[in-house]
Amino acid sequence: MQDYPLTLCHVFHRAERLWRDKEIVTVTKNGARERTTYGDWAERTRRVAGALDELGVSADGRVGTFAWNSARHLELYFAAPCTGRVLHTLNIRLFPEQVVYVANHAEDEVVFVDRSLLPLFWPLVDELKTVRHVIVMDDGDGPEIPDDPRVLDYEELLARSARVDRFHVADENSAAAMCYTSGTTGNPKGVVYSHRSMTLHAMATMLSDTFGLSERDVVLPVVPQFHANAWGLAHAVVMTGASIIMPGPDLSAPAIAKLMVEENVTVAAGVPTIWMGVLPELEGKELPHLRHVLCGGSAVPRALSEAYRKQIGLPILQAWGMTETSPIGSVATIRSSHADLPEEDLAALRATVGITSPLVDVRIVEPGADTELPWDGKAQGELQVAGPWIAAGYYRDERSAGSFSEDGWLRTGDVATIDEHGYIRLVDRTKDVIKSGGEWISSVELENEIMGHPDVAEAAVIGVPDARWGERPLACVVAKDGATLDADAIRGYLDGRVAKWWIPERVEMIDEVPKTSVGKFSKKDLRERFTGEATGATKAVETA
Amino acid sequence: MQDYPLTLCHVFHRAERLWRDKEIVTVTKNGARERTTYGDWAERTRRVAGALDELGVSADGRVGTFAWNSARHLELYFAAPCTGRVLHTLNIRLFPEQVVYVANHAEDEVVFVDRSLLPLFWPLVDELKTVRHVIVMDDGDGPEIPDDPRVLDYEELLARSARVDRFHVADENSAAAMCYTSGTTGNPKGVVYSHRSMTLHAMATMLSDTFGLSERDVVLPVVPQFHANAWGLAHAVVMTGASIIMPGPDLSAPAIAKLMVEENVTVAAGVPTIWMGVLPELEGKELPHLRHVLCGGSAVPRALSEAYRKQIGLPILQAWGMTETSPIGSVATIRSSHADLPEEDLAALRATVGITSPLVDVRIVEPGADTELPWDGKAQGELQVAGPWIAAGYYRDERSAGSFSEDGWLRTGDVATIDEHGYIRLVDRTKDVIKSGGEWISSVELENEIMGHPDVAEAAVIGVPDARWGERPLACVVAKDGATLDADAIRGYLDGRVAKWWIPERVEMIDEVPKTSVGKFSKKDLRERFTGEATGATKAVETA
Repeated sequence: MQDYPLTLCHVFHRAERLWRDKEIVTVTKNGARERTTYGDWAERTRRVAGALDELGVSADGRVGTFAWNSARHLELYFAAPCTGRVLHTLNIRLFPEQVVYVANHAEDEVVFVDRSLLPLFWPLVDELKTVRHVIVMDDGDGPEIPDDPRVLDYEELLARSARVDRFHVADENSAAAMCYTSGTTGNPKGVVYSHRSMTLHAMATMLSDTFGLSERDVVLPVVPQFHANAWGLAHAVVMTGASIIMPGPDLSAPAIAKLMVEENVTVAAGVPTIWMGVLPELEGKELPHLRHVLCGGSAVPRALSEAYRKQIGLPILQAWGMTETSPIGSVATIRSSHADLPEEDLAALRATVGITSPLVDVRIVEPGADTELPWDGKAQGELQVAGPWIAAGYYRDERSAGSFSEDGWLRTGDVATIDEHGYIRLVDRTKDVIKSGGEWISSVELENEIMGHPDVAEAAVIGVPDARWGERPLACVVAKDGATLDADAIRGYLDGRVAKWWIPERVEMIDEVPKTSVGKFSKKDLRERFTGEATGATKAVETA
Repeated sequence: MQDYPLTLCHVFHRAERLWRDKEIVTVTKNGARERTTYGDWAERTRRVAGALDELGVSADGRVGTFAWNSARHLELYFAAPCTGRVLHTLNIRLFPEQVVYVANHAEDEVVFVDRSLLPLFWPLVDELKTVRHVIVMDDGDGPEIPDDPRVLDYEELLARSARVDRFHVADENSAAAMCYTSGTTGNPKGVVYSHRSMTLHAMATMLSDTFGLSERDVVLPVVPQFHANAWGLAHAVVMTGASIIMPGPDLSAPAIAKLMVEENVTVAAGVPTIWMGVLPELEGKELPHLRHVLCGGSAVPRALSEAYRKQIGLPILQAWGMTETSPIGSVATIRSSHADLPEEDLAALRATVGITSPLVDVRIVEPGADTELPWDGKAQGELQVAGPWIAAGYYRDERSAGSFSEDGWLRTGDVATIDEHGYIRLVDRTKDVIKSGGEWISSVELENEIMGHPDVAEAAVIGVPDARWGERPLACVVAKDGATLDADAIRGYLDGRVAKWWIPERVEMIDEVPKTSVGKFSKKDLRERFTGEATGATKAVETA
């Protein structure tokens, strides 16, 4: 067989040849929708590649981006790796000191910044040791471009740059892009994606039994391009020729709902908090083209998926993955033999993270022992994964050692069961699981049950030290606007739904669950807030 | 990223873990349907692997099969490569001397033969220089098993063989299987598939825009397992977990139609002659589950696809490929922007071989010059392909040189146009195109037009020497049963449908178009029969 490398150059060439007429839509900071085609995008991408030469970026230099989802960002997605450089998507939601850390750690030579994000980025620029150029992409609004020799306008740079005619990467294992995790402790850790891993991952999203992405699709990634490459969708659309809607900075529920309706979106992807907000906005709207509401990043509450099914006729399609897994590991596609189960059972299957993608291997292991546990739906162990788009280590980071098994599998930090049909059920994070009286309580399951209460908007459960039991659960609950709730109501609701000893003595009514930079519940913040307090006292807070 | 090899071991393990309850059905020689599951199949495959050890097959030895499509054949498909050996599917339709040639050329150490095929195989056994064992698989009928020390019964061998617990292949580029082409001139040429190529190819068949194979599918490969691995379907079903219906020896139209109906087949694949025969048998039948009638191997007449659309509501889905391309190169999936075209235009698009699969590159080049021609739907050139599942050469064969371009692309021998949307239209084989008065006449296009005549069953067009024009077309036409046709009727029908100078002076009414071992029109036979005759004289033959 031919020694044909799997590279993003192939993906680019395919789009340039086949999808010239397909559309890329970008929403700007001021709400306008800029429309372009893959044909124009491809031509501009070749000029961006020339700009990287012009700027003197080294042959394998890191090219940083600090940007919302946009067609320009997608140009950089291919201009950098197709010339051998490495795209580094900086997470704009990291703390400033973390942004500085990752840009310095990756040794970014240039950063492409959205104009609307200059207020966040520019104050850090003098701390970035390797950045020689800052290229500003005008996304419709923001401060004046700083008068500084390092700064250039993206369009001016393009205008004076030569088109690169030949994209070629010989080694499919060479680095194409990198992304830092948004770990809650310590500095972020870098994951380096190869041409091979990204090409295979893009194909994986096009399989019938995963997302089934197709040329017919109109894809709206509400998940940012700096978050595991918009879950790989940013490459997949280019390979399939799907139209793409880049939502820009406004990720508010009304804006997303409007885009879904007006652009005839067929596949939309985002974290649970996005979809919680969007659902009320879809009330009374027609969505005849929508075929997948993809959700991942953290556990999808069963009640949320069911609410989508009841309101728009389409349950959420849950997927599981991490920055370290490119990210698609598994997708909750229902097996054909289960397709005719009662809705109640289907909802339970959809609340799993589903079945592994082809080319991904999973196992659950006894914590600490690395012995494999059976797929019986009962045994709980740490989920470990292997595959061609799973990280083998972190970029120049001593912390790699603890994150991989002796035989090289990624320790995900998730506690899971796997049943005989292969459905993976996430029980908890290894660090969030609550050890009470020698038994485990799943914080995620408790949260899911509480979020099934009609007056609950959000709930997060953490473990707090307890003299008698070692640890006990504490529930932090946010009531829906206008609803009145107290701890007893929550405990009463849980009675009969979970084991008696799971019911938390403490239920705290709070205004909002604190979130991490990527929209996940920040249990670290909740622990800091509540574990100092005396155990046993509950405080009911009524929301206005 | 992890250095995770793409191997059939992964595909096997996936099926063993996930698809234990999914079904494999094999039709035996006597018409019985043997039902098994992937669970039992996997367990047996591990014992077949043990049998290969028991027989002393060398570490990378070639394991021959001479068999119909069956669950047992599918066991060998994984037992051989997952232990590092190379599966060699002997084409039972080759001439006996060719079978001897390929078995000796590949140095097969063992051959697994269906009992019903012993009459074809056994007479050759003494000429097979490297074959030490002949294992007979009892497919329900056939002669007694020969009393010979080389011969063993498959089930007896399995019963005494140890299960191989660990399947592991470290190098994804190692050989997994081989297949010889059924060239019409000279000895067949061997193509060696790697673990990597077969794994990637299986994924390609699962993409939404190719065949979209899914766990929900019930796949009927009417194409034999010795013909490019049943077009790769034999691996794809195992990766997806689709149920598979192995039709065994009876590929008659009534038998195939019956299977399609009774087994709720969703995807069926075969060459045009198969589908020509099957259509009348589907009259009045309900096929609510059928979603793809896949067709390839030779050009699909537009009239045939339209007949399927009109009768069963589903046009044929044409795909293009060769033994050298694993075989999927392109699939005639209609682009979304063309979905609403009038039926007439859609039929024209379906008559193309469609758009390349992801990971496959195509180009058309000036014959002889290797300069690329434009994608304008007009320029005709030789179709050349590149990709990770495209052959780089033939196995130990000096003829490789002429079949590849200087930069390593496969010369397909097909003449094609490619339009601006990427649809590839096969014009002819380079050796079949007719050069008349300095212009090209496409034998395939002429055949397609003639086969549009309601009374025509089949038609093949060849070039015959002509003193004035160099070459002129000669049409060999088979009338439908009971129909009366003559040369003038054909010429009259063509008038206005093709250019005047394309209309053949000679139209020969024949009883049947001779076929090659894989069911393609054998133009070589027609040329031998007709080019000796004087040009200009036409002979009308009426069929009874």
